[in-house]
Amino acid sequence: MTDRLYLYDTTLRDGQQTQGVQFSAAEKTEIAQMLDALGVDYIEGGWPGANPTDSDFFAAPPPTRAMLTAFGMTKRAGRSAGNDDVLAAVLNAGTQGVCLVGKTHDFHVREALGIPLDDNIDNISASIAHVAGLGREALFDAEHFFDGWKADRDYALSCLIAARDAGARWIVLCDTNGGTLPHEIAEITAQVIAAGIPGARLGIHAHDDTGNAVACTLAAVRAGARQVQGTLNGLGERCGNANLTTLIPTLALKPEFAGLLPQIAPEALRGLLKTSRRLDEILNRAPQANAPYVGASAFAHKAGLHASAIIRNPTTYEHVAPETTGNARIIPMSNQAGQSNLRARLSDAGLTVPEGADLGAILADVKAREDRGYAYDVAEASFELLARRHLGALPRFFDVERYRVIVERRRNAKGAQISVSEAVVTVRLQGQRVMSVSESHGETDLDDRGPVNALWRALGKDLGPYQASIDDMRLVDFRVRITQGGTDAVTRVTIDSEDRQGTRWSTVGVSANIVDASFEALHDAVVWKLIRDGAAP
Amino acid sequence: MTDRLYLYDTTLRDGQQTQGVQFSAAEKTEIAQMLDALGVDYIEGGWPGANPTDSDFFAAPPPTRAMLTAFGMTKRAGRSAGNDDVLAAVLNAGTQGVCLVGKTHDFHVREALGIPLDDNIDNISASIAHVAGLGREALFDAEHFFDGWKADRDYALSCLIAARDAGARWIVLCDTNGGTLPHEIAEITAQVIAAGIPGARLGIHAHDDTGNAVACTLAAVRAGARQVQGTLNGLGERCGNANLTTLIPTLALKPEFAGLLPQIAPEALRGLLKTSRRLDEILNRAPQANAPYVGASAFAHKAGLHASAIIRNPTTYEHVAPETTGNARIIPMSNQAGQSNLRARLSDAGLTVPEGADLGAILADVKAREDRGYAYDVAEASFELLARRHLGALPRFFDVERYRVIVERRRNAKGAQISVSEAVVTVRLQGQRVMSVSESHGETDLDDRGPVNALWRALGKDLGPYQASIDDMRLVDFRVRITQGGTDAVTRVTIDSEDRQGTRWSTVGVSANIVDASFEALHDAVVWKLIRDGAAP
Repeated sequence: MTDRLYLYDTTLRDGQQTQGVQFSAAEKTEIAQMLDALGVDYIEGGWPGANPTDSDFFAAPPPTRAMLTAFGMTKRAGRSAGNDDVLAAVLNAGTQGVCLVGKTHDFHVREALGIPLDDNIDNISASIAHVAGLGREALFDAEHFFDGWKADRDYALSCLIAARDAGARWIVLCDTNGGTLPHEIAEITAQVIAAGIPGARLGIHAHDDTGNAVACTLAAVRAGARQVQGTLNGLGERCGNANLTTLIPTLALKPEFAGLLPQIAPEALRGLLKTSRRLDEILNRAPQANAPYVGASAFAHKAGLHASAIIRNPTTYEHVAPETTGNARIIPMSNQAGQSNLRARLSDAGLTVPEGADLGAILADVKAREDRGYAYDVAEASFELLARRHLGALPRFFDVERYRVIVERRRNAKGAQISVSEAVVTVRLQGQRVMSVSESHGETDLDDRGPVNALWRALGKDLGPYQASIDDMRLVDFRVRITQGGTDAVTRVTIDSEDRQGTRWSTVGVSANIVDASFEALHDAVVWKLIRDGAAP
Repeated sequence: MTDRLYLYDTTLRDGQQTQGVQFSAAEKTEIAQMLDALGVDYIEGGWPGANPTDSDFFAAPPPTRAMLTAFGMTKRAGRSAGNDDVLAAVLNAGTQGVCLVGKTHDFHVREALGIPLDDNIDNISASIAHVAGLGREALFDAEHFFDGWKADRDYALSCLIAARDAGARWIVLCDTNGGTLPHEIAEITAQVIAAGIPGARLGIHAHDDTGNAVACTLAAVRAGARQVQGTLNGLGERCGNANLTTLIPTLALKPEFAGLLPQIAPEALRGLLKTSRRLDEILNRAPQANAPYVGASAFAHKAGLHASAIIRNPTTYEHVAPETTGNARIIPMSNQAGQSNLRARLSDAGLTVPEGADLGAILADVKAREDRGYAYDVAEASFELLARRHLGALPRFFDVERYRVIVERRRNAKGAQISVSEAVVTVRLQGQRVMSVSESHGETDLDDRGPVNALWRALGKDLGPYQASIDDMRLVDFRVRITQGGTDAVTRVTIDSEDRQGTRWSTVGVSANIVDASFEALHDAVVWKLIRDGAAP
């Protein structure tokens, strides 16, 4: 255990520097919980005081086994650590871990701070001592350390020594602009350890600007650094940070690093793909198909030579087993592998496959629909309904004859801009036509929730014998992505529903018309719920 | 020149093993021409005889300065090299370069080929000698070499020696399953050179299964290998091959490798971003925003601290200048940003900030709106309009009084399920009320494009003096995500628009109602375009 490696996740801080990424406080909480389940040691939650969502997150953080850490910077010159309001805001978040970034490159001290070199060292010392003196765990992010070392190694080293002597638990070597190559990281890290900063207190923070963030991190670990900083899916400023989703399996599975990650349980590692995909869902990003270990194509064997060998012995073309990270082998050529996959998924859904069932037809249908834009890997309930249709096991509860939704934006009597959405759904149920109408807002006309909400209210308003099941469910998430279906752009809507027992299910709809795609997913959600409740068709 | 590095591109062969990628012969021709303009030394065009498009491409290849190379495998056992029809098909392509893959891992010789180890060595010898004897340049791809070396180094080495002695110009060490780590590549490559295979005849072929393909390639080059194999944008089987789009700038720009790539002219390097994007266009893939050197975010400085330093001196946070690969610096707006960031952004938008302008008020507005769900770092045009409003520089072209959109799903006269979306937009323009109506489908009622399309058509139908500007723009992308705005879930819609000159701009709208959010983004898109066109308010 003395030689184990510590994982420091900065998805919520440096990951938020990704262009286009802005987490809400609720999303930060969910991601922190995923990270904790994965087994990381530190979760850096953000910079308290720098923006409202970070402050909101730290006001009510989720309980975690991992040490929650707040990020900030060393105190500014000309005031004491206790009188720096930026530092105070960081400390006021009340986290056990406090990570402060400071300069170690003489050029940056002069150029960005414009203060004497010694003053910067004082700032580091005083800030770290202040944090440690409060009984917090202090971490020092040595910004631009490798460039600083190359420019003036004595000065760069003296910054680290100041942090060490002031009581920093960790001193993190940051390659802030991402330009340092792996062999340089290896050499410099070894020299830093030789100069008196113990590897057991040394971390590495790499960026992917040369495509080497993972390799730089591994190089530092091999040189003796024992903390690794990174982000899920490699989020981060510019080209991103070292990708923990790639690093964790390599560190956990390669014999070279055996024993270094006891905190990552095999079950947690098997959840890695789901964690990675959930983050993409939150960000509404398409998952990267060629991502190591967790990409949809990571174990896809397209070359004919490879595929035939893989079928005889998977170790011929796979460096690790796909299951270890929750992934699966794909052999586009072999529909045998596809069928065994499918059989497993159907039995997961509680469906017994009759003798002689045409699994090939289901596979072909899934493939054809995925070509049109459907995505069944995140919509298991819709997948189950599709399979039931093929297997003759899809009950018919009601038929939707037509629907209409109107959205109107205008001024109300008081002159305020308001919107009203109104939906009518006509259903055939037990031989009768039932027409339901609903609008999307509550008591006042200022809280319109839009056409999908109105449709959902109308559909779920009067379903006779099924009403109790419907009243037991609610829509908890709604995601929309524009995708390519055949030659045209289409809209894919995924809806997550939940019942009072906490069961969650996801359904998908696809159409060039976003309302139709939404309605399809809503309809699947209701049908799945009725099947689960054992409703009579 | 004796020590220069040779670039071997396999986009058209191994790149085609990417899941979902299938080039046409015409696309192969275009890509080969791009590669030639870039300055690579070898273009591997495919496997003649293995599939019809490869054969078509080789039947009429484009003239290139680079050596066109055909790929195949060493002859099979039990026949001579001259009598192997698979090898004959490769040679019949008539290329000057011929690259043959062969086994070097004893496990694979036994498991996949099922022949004695010595027979495999004979196959290598005879095949390479046959190619060289025809006056062609012979290359040997040593499949699974690193695993083979670890399992039985004498056997693996004897395979290489056989290829060398039979006249192979290049012996390429392939990490076929992508599982070897960079330090292993470095050590083994050095040992191979020490064992008598000269670095000047040695190549490296790495895959990205541990996220280290680039680092493995650099490690081999540092150990002495002088040919680098890879693909544009890192295409390739499973997680892809070593990414030449990343490797070429690193090899060309980092002092460590100075002089190794005289064939890559600075002008060609400046065309790298365009080459990368063109390939994505051919494949209809979204460009990877965080790709090193060529990604849209590769030089995006979102952190406030970074942005303020970058403005003073770009070298503070950039390891190379973005222009060297045809890229550009971006300082996006977001709630991380400070005033310096804002000032730079405004001046990029061509806005002069008056003396005493309240930048703090703009920042506060941006933060407040981002808290409600807006995201301005990917919606620069909406950001500009927001700033103009504060600076009193937002022209008023027309007012939208109200709009209404109806989506109806029903059966048509022929009994088919159809959808129709119909929108009415009422605008006040030059003192007059103008009502426009539009529906969302074309000639037939089977191709409904939904409510946003209908609204866009109605809004853009009759804007009087502005009609020419409107007709010059089209919507090219539409993204939707549900986010947390304050306490409630809201919808954020981002729209990308483009004009005929290829100018692109992005706008954002936020509302609990997806139609309202979309309309807000549409409205911003139109107003921005009118400002750019200098329309009279």
